[in-house]
Amino acid sequence: MDAAFQYIEGNKERFLQELQEFLRFASVSAQDRHKQDVIDCAAWLKDHMEDIGLEASLVETSGHPIVQGRCAGQSSRKLVIYGHYDVQPEDPLDEWKTPPFDPVIKDGFLYGRGATDDKGQLFAHVKAIESLLKTQGQLPCEILFLIEGEEECGGSGLEDFIKQQKDKLLKDVIGVIVSDCDMYDEQTPAITYSLRGCAALEVTVNGPSCDVHSGGFGGVIGNPATALANIIAACIGTDGKIKIPGFYDDVRDMQKWEQDNISQLNYDDDNLARQLAIPKVTGESGFPSLARMWHRPTFDVNGIYGGYCGQGGKTIIPAKATAKISMRLVPNQQPEKIFKQTEEYIRSVCPDYVSLEIANRGGTKPVTFETDDALIQAGVEALQAGFGSKSVYIGGGGSIPVVSTFWEELQCPIVLMGVGLETDGAHSPNECFKIDNFINGAKAGAHLMANIK
Amino acid sequence: MDAAFQYIEGNKERFLQELQEFLRFASVSAQDRHKQDVIDCAAWLKDHMEDIGLEASLVETSGHPIVQGRCAGQSSRKLVIYGHYDVQPEDPLDEWKTPPFDPVIKDGFLYGRGATDDKGQLFAHVKAIESLLKTQGQLPCEILFLIEGEEECGGSGLEDFIKQQKDKLLKDVIGVIVSDCDMYDEQTPAITYSLRGCAALEVTVNGPSCDVHSGGFGGVIGNPATALANIIAACIGTDGKIKIPGFYDDVRDMQKWEQDNISQLNYDDDNLARQLAIPKVTGESGFPSLARMWHRPTFDVNGIYGGYCGQGGKTIIPAKATAKISMRLVPNQQPEKIFKQTEEYIRSVCPDYVSLEIANRGGTKPVTFETDDALIQAGVEALQAGFGSKSVYIGGGGSIPVVSTFWEELQCPIVLMGVGLETDGAHSPNECFKIDNFINGAKAGAHLMANIK
Repeated sequence: MDAAFQYIEGNKERFLQELQEFLRFASVSAQDRHKQDVIDCAAWLKDHMEDIGLEASLVETSGHPIVQGRCAGQSSRKLVIYGHYDVQPEDPLDEWKTPPFDPVIKDGFLYGRGATDDKGQLFAHVKAIESLLKTQGQLPCEILFLIEGEEECGGSGLEDFIKQQKDKLLKDVIGVIVSDCDMYDEQTPAITYSLRGCAALEVTVNGPSCDVHSGGFGGVIGNPATALANIIAACIGTDGKIKIPGFYDDVRDMQKWEQDNISQLNYDDDNLARQLAIPKVTGESGFPSLARMWHRPTFDVNGIYGGYCGQGGKTIIPAKATAKISMRLVPNQQPEKIFKQTEEYIRSVCPDYVSLEIANRGGTKPVTFETDDALIQAGVEALQAGFGSKSVYIGGGGSIPVVSTFWEELQCPIVLMGVGLETDGAHSPNECFKIDNFINGAKAGAHLMANIK
Repeated sequence: MDAAFQYIEGNKERFLQELQEFLRFASVSAQDRHKQDVIDCAAWLKDHMEDIGLEASLVETSGHPIVQGRCAGQSSRKLVIYGHYDVQPEDPLDEWKTPPFDPVIKDGFLYGRGATDDKGQLFAHVKAIESLLKTQGQLPCEILFLIEGEEECGGSGLEDFIKQQKDKLLKDVIGVIVSDCDMYDEQTPAITYSLRGCAALEVTVNGPSCDVHSGGFGGVIGNPATALANIIAACIGTDGKIKIPGFYDDVRDMQKWEQDNISQLNYDDDNLARQLAIPKVTGESGFPSLARMWHRPTFDVNGIYGGYCGQGGKTIIPAKATAKISMRLVPNQQPEKIFKQTEEYIRSVCPDYVSLEIANRGGTKPVTFETDDALIQAGVEALQAGFGSKSVYIGGGGSIPVVSTFWEELQCPIVLMGVGLETDGAHSPNECFKIDNFINGAKAGAHLMANIK
């Protein structure tokens, strides 16, 4: 591996410039106005893969295209490298210290939307294969990049592709590598052995046909914003306990080793509170923070709006109010069942003087992998080689929708070896990626690809 | 009065054109970007008053100017005509069928922001004095127009002016005429003998220093939007009962004649529900709709916002969430006491894992007038002369901040003779003003000015 690692070190500056180029595409998949940026970004990545010697193509889907890159191996067995080139919306724009799509390097970090989630992390693997192609003979097995453009918008393009190709292109897949998650901390790389699922919905409470004067009508017209507030409060109190009947029914208890693992990791709540400038961490009582982050479900309002939101005041009763809600799920909760329970409950608590619209915004099943699997152990060794430190096993609080599809359809091991940091600000303003992690991640990727047979 | 009434009928088309000109100014007092429009609007009104023969001037204040217009009478006793030339913000703009500041006449109504609230109603009095000046000798007493530009933004300019001038310019005021409210229905003019007060506040719940990933942090970071929802739900349930301790303590019971009056008026709840396309009217149990609109206090969220409000989804925990709240007050509630009770209660129910900002957005005291006052009786006669129908006594659900100041400082009768309709859409998209009410309102104004001694 020395030659490949030297190549990575020797080409570090160029790799960074290329990553900056990749970050300049505003590939926000959830917003129609960025459709062309998404397409341009996919085309750039395909061209780049070709430039470094992969056989690359764009796979059309019902939504944004998948970038596919292949590199033949000594056998027909395939190792899939998953990533996504789409990014979250950049707003609130005024909280960015540098432009989200004009990446800037500062103090060992690269700042820009997508830096860590997931362009930087997937690009480490692109640079890994480049280093192997330039310094080694043919790899033991085929490397197949599948880089989607719909991770942040809940599209089904890659899911459909996996289902279609499971007995064709994906027949000989022996495992999937995913770097779209975090290390445990700045010093400690990690294998993420579980991911929470997700169920998302949008609730709109409709009142009068237009905003009306709160003086003239206050007292006789139901207020959609206060009704929505009551609905949300009926779903979750200030104690973090979710009040939707049956919501916890299918939640699997943590295993003994998971409880011990969390105890040993000794997570620093106060440090997190300091980092995020909050008075204290909080959540469901009876569970330590890491358990609440990894193994317990949640109910969060991602956005709420209704009525007058401008400067000054406007004494109206709003015509409507909307909440975007997402719930994180854990084994063995099922997104569709949770959606149904939630919808029924919300309808039952909604007052009869307003009307409701509830939209299902998609779901992802939670997943858990056995840590003693051979591919996961190869991941542990690769992280040791790339970072020079022993990794730990962690859970992932977020969801990677396609991971549950890979898991269900291909029934092969999936190695989640993220090289981001919790403090990278994924989905937040001033998202960044530590340059050392980019380089060490490329080394770990190269180690893994060279050693999987 | 015949000559004045004939003058009004004969000049109707020109009056309407002038009113349209007046409506073209986007005099939105709450928004800095419309500052110049507010100033231009005041200047236009002053010039117009001069053109019709008043001695007019702009009175500078701490905020937007007051337009003052005077017409000497046979005595030094003064009748004040109050109005406001500022308007509510126009949003939601996309719900307007015609541009808010490009007035359009259709089916006997004039459409545009400010048409009924309050440009159209105050302009009826401007046209009333014009008709008297063109057709009569000197009026019995001086007519003093005080038209403010801060009614919709809670400014204190006119309040300060009244306090400064109470023993000077306003020493001999015998009454104040206000047309900034509604008739009872399309056939029935009304004297508004009470106005609810108001206490407004803005509550911001602060969480993490920026929006954070709801996967990574969901379960450990308190969500400001769900905290805000719980705070609102703690203030008011879905049954319309306000839960702030002590909130109802000072509420005066309705008088017997008020209860009888409401019974006789026989308000049609179903008609209102149909008009506003709501399933049903609602509110505090045990009180008929007119009692809830006029004589019971309210708690309304006028606007709520936090987190991601764009297209698609964004799985974040918002950094903060804000609610703009207004409470309508009735005798003998005091805005400052209500604000204090509300602030204390919100602080007491707010969870300790978020921080709170509560801003006092101003208050107005509720007022009630004795209906047997001579000036109010002159108003009843004027409405009979202008509209040809008997008026009824009604309460006003909204607040006219300056009315309580006039009442407290000048201790003279105040006649609220509104010529708007509940369906005019004050504060809403597609605000309008019935042209017949403009003309009949001008006649009623002329009758009153000519007959007050």
